[in-house]
Amino acid sequence: MLVSALLTSVGINSGLCVLFFTLYSILRKQPSNYEVYIPRLMAEGKSKLRSSFNLERLIPSTGWVKRAWKPSEEDLLSMSGLDAVVFMRIITFSLKVFLFAGVIGIFVLLPVNCSGDQLQDIDFADLSNNSLDVFTISNLRRGSKRLWAHFSAVYLVTAFLCYLLYYEFKYITAKRIDFFHSTKPQPHQFTILVRSIPVSAGNSVRESVERFFLEYHPSTYLSHMVVHQSSKLPSLIKDAKKLCKRLTHLQSESSQQKHGHVGLFGKKVDLVDHYGKKLEDIEENMRLERSEVSLAAEVRELRAAFVSFKSRYGAAVAFHMQQSTNPTEWVTELAPEPHDVYWPFFSSTFMKRWLSKIAVVVACILLTILFLIPVLVVQGLTNLNQLEIWFPFLKSILTVTFVSEVVTGYLPSLILQLFLTIVPPIMEFLSSIQGYICHSEIEKSACNKVLWFTIWNIFFATVFSGSVLYQVFIFLDPKNIPARLGVAVPAQASFFIAYVVTSGWTSTSSELFRLFPLMWSLIKKPFSCCSDEEFEVPSVPYHREIPRILFFGLLGITYFFLAPLILPFLLVYLCLAYIIYRNQFINVYAPKYETAGKFWPIVHNSMIFSLLLMQAIAFGIFTLKKLSLASTLVIPLPILTLLFNEYCRKRFLPNFIAYPAEVLIKRDREDRHDPNMTEFYENLVTAYQDPALLPIEFSSNPDSLRSPLISSAQVLR
Amino acid sequence: MLVSALLTSVGINSGLCVLFFTLYSILRKQPSNYEVYIPRLMAEGKSKLRSSFNLERLIPSTGWVKRAWKPSEEDLLSMSGLDAVVFMRIITFSLKVFLFAGVIGIFVLLPVNCSGDQLQDIDFADLSNNSLDVFTISNLRRGSKRLWAHFSAVYLVTAFLCYLLYYEFKYITAKRIDFFHSTKPQPHQFTILVRSIPVSAGNSVRESVERFFLEYHPSTYLSHMVVHQSSKLPSLIKDAKKLCKRLTHLQSESSQQKHGHVGLFGKKVDLVDHYGKKLEDIEENMRLERSEVSLAAEVRELRAAFVSFKSRYGAAVAFHMQQSTNPTEWVTELAPEPHDVYWPFFSSTFMKRWLSKIAVVVACILLTILFLIPVLVVQGLTNLNQLEIWFPFLKSILTVTFVSEVVTGYLPSLILQLFLTIVPPIMEFLSSIQGYICHSEIEKSACNKVLWFTIWNIFFATVFSGSVLYQVFIFLDPKNIPARLGVAVPAQASFFIAYVVTSGWTSTSSELFRLFPLMWSLIKKPFSCCSDEEFEVPSVPYHREIPRILFFGLLGITYFFLAPLILPFLLVYLCLAYIIYRNQFINVYAPKYETAGKFWPIVHNSMIFSLLLMQAIAFGIFTLKKLSLASTLVIPLPILTLLFNEYCRKRFLPNFIAYPAEVLIKRDREDRHDPNMTEFYENLVTAYQDPALLPIEFSSNPDSLRSPLISSAQVLR
Repeated sequence: MLVSALLTSVGINSGLCVLFFTLYSILRKQPSNYEVYIPRLMAEGKSKLRSSFNLERLIPSTGWVKRAWKPSEEDLLSMSGLDAVVFMRIITFSLKVFLFAGVIGIFVLLPVNCSGDQLQDIDFADLSNNSLDVFTISNLRRGSKRLWAHFSAVYLVTAFLCYLLYYEFKYITAKRIDFFHSTKPQPHQFTILVRSIPVSAGNSVRESVERFFLEYHPSTYLSHMVVHQSSKLPSLIKDAKKLCKRLTHLQSESSQQKHGHVGLFGKKVDLVDHYGKKLEDIEENMRLERSEVSLAAEVRELRAAFVSFKSRYGAAVAFHMQQSTNPTEWVTELAPEPHDVYWPFFSSTFMKRWLSKIAVVVACILLTILFLIPVLVVQGLTNLNQLEIWFPFLKSILTVTFVSEVVTGYLPSLILQLFLTIVPPIMEFLSSIQGYICHSEIEKSACNKVLWFTIWNIFFATVFSGSVLYQVFIFLDPKNIPARLGVAVPAQASFFIAYVVTSGWTSTSSELFRLFPLMWSLIKKPFSCCSDEEFEVPSVPYHREIPRILFFGLLGITYFFLAPLILPFLLVYLCLAYIIYRNQFINVYAPKYETAGKFWPIVHNSMIFSLLLMQAIAFGIFTLKKLSLASTLVIPLPILTLLFNEYCRKRFLPNFIAYPAEVLIKRDREDRHDPNMTEFYENLVTAYQDPALLPIEFSSNPDSLRSPLISSAQVLR
Repeated sequence: MLVSALLTSVGINSGLCVLFFTLYSILRKQPSNYEVYIPRLMAEGKSKLRSSFNLERLIPSTGWVKRAWKPSEEDLLSMSGLDAVVFMRIITFSLKVFLFAGVIGIFVLLPVNCSGDQLQDIDFADLSNNSLDVFTISNLRRGSKRLWAHFSAVYLVTAFLCYLLYYEFKYITAKRIDFFHSTKPQPHQFTILVRSIPVSAGNSVRESVERFFLEYHPSTYLSHMVVHQSSKLPSLIKDAKKLCKRLTHLQSESSQQKHGHVGLFGKKVDLVDHYGKKLEDIEENMRLERSEVSLAAEVRELRAAFVSFKSRYGAAVAFHMQQSTNPTEWVTELAPEPHDVYWPFFSSTFMKRWLSKIAVVVACILLTILFLIPVLVVQGLTNLNQLEIWFPFLKSILTVTFVSEVVTGYLPSLILQLFLTIVPPIMEFLSSIQGYICHSEIEKSACNKVLWFTIWNIFFATVFSGSVLYQVFIFLDPKNIPARLGVAVPAQASFFIAYVVTSGWTSTSSELFRLFPLMWSLIKKPFSCCSDEEFEVPSVPYHREIPRILFFGLLGITYFFLAPLILPFLLVYLCLAYIIYRNQFINVYAPKYETAGKFWPIVHNSMIFSLLLMQAIAFGIFTLKKLSLASTLVIPLPILTLLFNEYCRKRFLPNFIAYPAEVLIKRDREDRHDPNMTEFYENLVTAYQDPALLPIEFSSNPDSLRSPLISSAQVLR
């Protein structure tokens, strides 16, 4: 890629960023956009009342930056929970790493690279038309002693990164424990989920659970709640709710507009009738479904139950111990928060979950293979000559400098970016059918999937720019991997710089601008009949955002000594991300669940992988550059990194799976004298009831089946 | 290798076997050899009194075979524990597998192989001088349809083996649980070992442990026993015991011989004096050591303790739960049986154990590299031409047919065999410094080490017959592994047949004959002064025997379709092993510890590895033989095998790590009404005292420090 193409890309994206920022600072002040830009404040009732129109509303301002800058970590913790804190710490962590690497890269490695003479044919006076390679390690001759600067940089950055990783893991572990100590008693702390419950003939699941836990955990067992098969009920209820809202709104509107346009009014009345009839149908369906459920209650019980205990320690003991002689029965896991439970794909048997896990792995592999098609197209774009061969009719357009610069510099990353946006939802869906029982676990698993998908499909596919089979064969030939990486990775430096600019800068500022939600709200507005319809505060899509930041981390770590020019762009991205995400946490996103920092191990693993990759590339590069002493001296580095990782896993990871006995017992003791505990236990018994079955569970009178929202349909008639 | 060379080897080894059997059946009847051949019976006092000489004692008999055949599995269980049962089941398992594979191999594959015409130049009339390759798969042409017989055999044997593995794992798991239910309360069931105990300034380890467990496990905690640093005391005590025995013997002898040869008697008196003085020195040393220990008791306390609980479930809960927020502190593990504890290398800190583990891994790798030297020499022997180049002066000898047959057929396996005998002790030593705290764990770990060492150094080194680096490079190039295996493995068929005969047949019958113990006892006899000196019943060296059987299993599984001729030899070996080991369990070995079948997962893993290796070879062979459809259809097999293994691990393995809650609680309930429990608890408190410190712990009077065995030295004077 040429410098000019890169500059074009930087130009376009900077322009877009400025545009987004300006638009944001104007649009966010318009009351009609409050739902898009400050849904969280609105939901909390903190938004100012709709003020009358004034000129100030049309002038861009930067006040929000200051407001986003202000809150301390404690404020963030109390506002958005520990997950938000951990998320922000990923960004500050990356900032620290790349500031350190940036100083070394820009002030030491970049001058060293430029002073090389491998690419002598480059005329420095005419830089803009020349290759960026002059700034990379490729510009150094074979056997050049200057490569020792890169060698030292590799060692220094590895050491610094490991130190930071250790410190951060320790810090977040401590935060996690503190957070646990500071929370009120919560149902999921006292509850475990038991699956694969064996049921002897003639017994119900309920009886089995009761008997088992009364026998083996008599002193701590409190109650249980058998999981029922989710029938069509949840979706029926959802439909009914929607229709009902629309009906109420229509009715209120029609009564207001009684003296308005008669034609329109007549239409509205028709609508009211129409919706009323629809609602009646649904109501009838629900009644049928429910009677079926109550008749066949025994049959539809799943072999899974939420079992609650009198103490956190009791629940933890039941979770940690293998209960039955057959480890595939009475399988225990920690319960999620009640509102975090994901009911639709609740599968209870051990085999079923195991098989669906295998199926999901296969699906992921297929998705990876299919995704290579757009990646290859993108690769074709960066190579203009090939494009001209494929599409001869484009030849005339591509000769225009600007067009060719856009095509080679900007388009490839943009296309990749667009394709990448569909990956997180797909991965989330795959995780959801894998047998996870809560949103948080699903997102955590999706986060991992998206991360490895990105690394494989963006990094390796771009670097090796070949077919899947070719890539697989490279990995089947492990001894040549470093050499191949050493050749291929530096060659793609400029593409990844462009990628940072496009994917990083623009997508982050479009995150601020909330392009898609804004468009959606604009499209929806003319059709939506009521302004307060289905207003829901969004939650952070961690499985989309974390892999993105981690992937930039991987790019930074692998390229910092090959092409230090990437670092300033990365730092700009991280600064943008820092301020924007803080702003979004304050104004937009509300936490949907609390994992208390369980996302951090993913970050740690990703950083360790980046380090290992970087060291493999360094080994390859030094071998290629015939500096065999350096390449030999690099070998201890991955071994030390792996040992460091192993130590961290042993030292910190157990605390991210479950809390230790010490902590649990202390908390239990504190609660012993709490007068609210009786009430808490009473609520605990019903905390894990399936929301779809709640009305039935509470009604003994068949007439009362009709929930208030449904009877409103009759009121309307 | 030629048929004749193989026949020579078979001849020599059959001869040796017959010799060993005959000698055994005679020698075992001689009272002087009772210590070697029936130590167990002697120790149990079951051996007949020394009968007067009669002719029958000199006639070989086969009565022992009948006696060894008789006991049922229950008898074996009650005699030698579950480990012996599991050991015997490894043999019966292999017998079942190779009977099945043998029927297929000999009656289907062998005729198919012989009917091939790839090696046409072979004259069947002159078989004895010809290659054995005519019986192997190499004799089939490329693309021959007859290879489908081999393909079906691969599928059939895989299915049969997996079925058996599942059944066996299930059976042994059930046995393990039954065994637990049938045992009396034992200290190790109620105890855990806690290491890395944090000690705050001014506190002793004892206080820390007491405080921690009283705080967090108040209802179940019973007592604890802090581990002390093993000083020079144990070896001093051992020396003193030896000397004392010798002294008592000398004294009794000298009093008997008072009227014998004066010169000799004078010498004896000198000896008595000499030993007496030596014993005094030791006694003095011990006293010093002990006073040091009692003075510096606080300092010499290790940060480790055996913590006993009131119930098995209480101990299990403490074992399963992470105790402290720092998972590298209060590290818990299940306690071994008290007599199984291995005191010398008791290291207590987390880091120390972790580092010593890494050091041991490095040591194993070094050992593997060093061991390749004898393997290469052996490889040289099978290639006569090369040997003649190396040692030209041997040329004349090697032209003698018999010598060359011995050299190529018998010598290589014998040398390998001799070198292999030193491996188990080395691996046992390495495991002992790795941080394991009991003999059983050390042997289990050594068993694994020896197994993989054997597979790597015998199988792969022989097959690839190259340097370590060459081998490593093969494994760095995984996509070519099957093809390389497909070429190299069939070529070594005759070597491994000879190996089975030499290593299997002869070593098993020498196990019966107990060659080395017999030699040792013969050498020792003239020098030993007393007949009942240091008579100890040996225990089975599982870490030597299990890897050997498993390695033969690997050979059988990988070669059954390549060279079915190996199977009859294997079956003979297994039958020999079956009867001989049963005999040894009855007469020779007494169990030193009881792992309750924890060796089985090693067997399972080894069998799965053998299957995968066999499938890889099959893939390679079918590819080489241009039967691409078959090689493609083999691919699902390893995937299914791995899934099967994964399922078995989930289904059975947890029961081999710890017992489930259900079982523990049932056992605890049964004990609740046992009147002996009070006494048991009393003994439990002191069960884990270091034997070296026992006298001190019990003495308050400094004079009583002198144990009876030491004061005997004074009596003698």
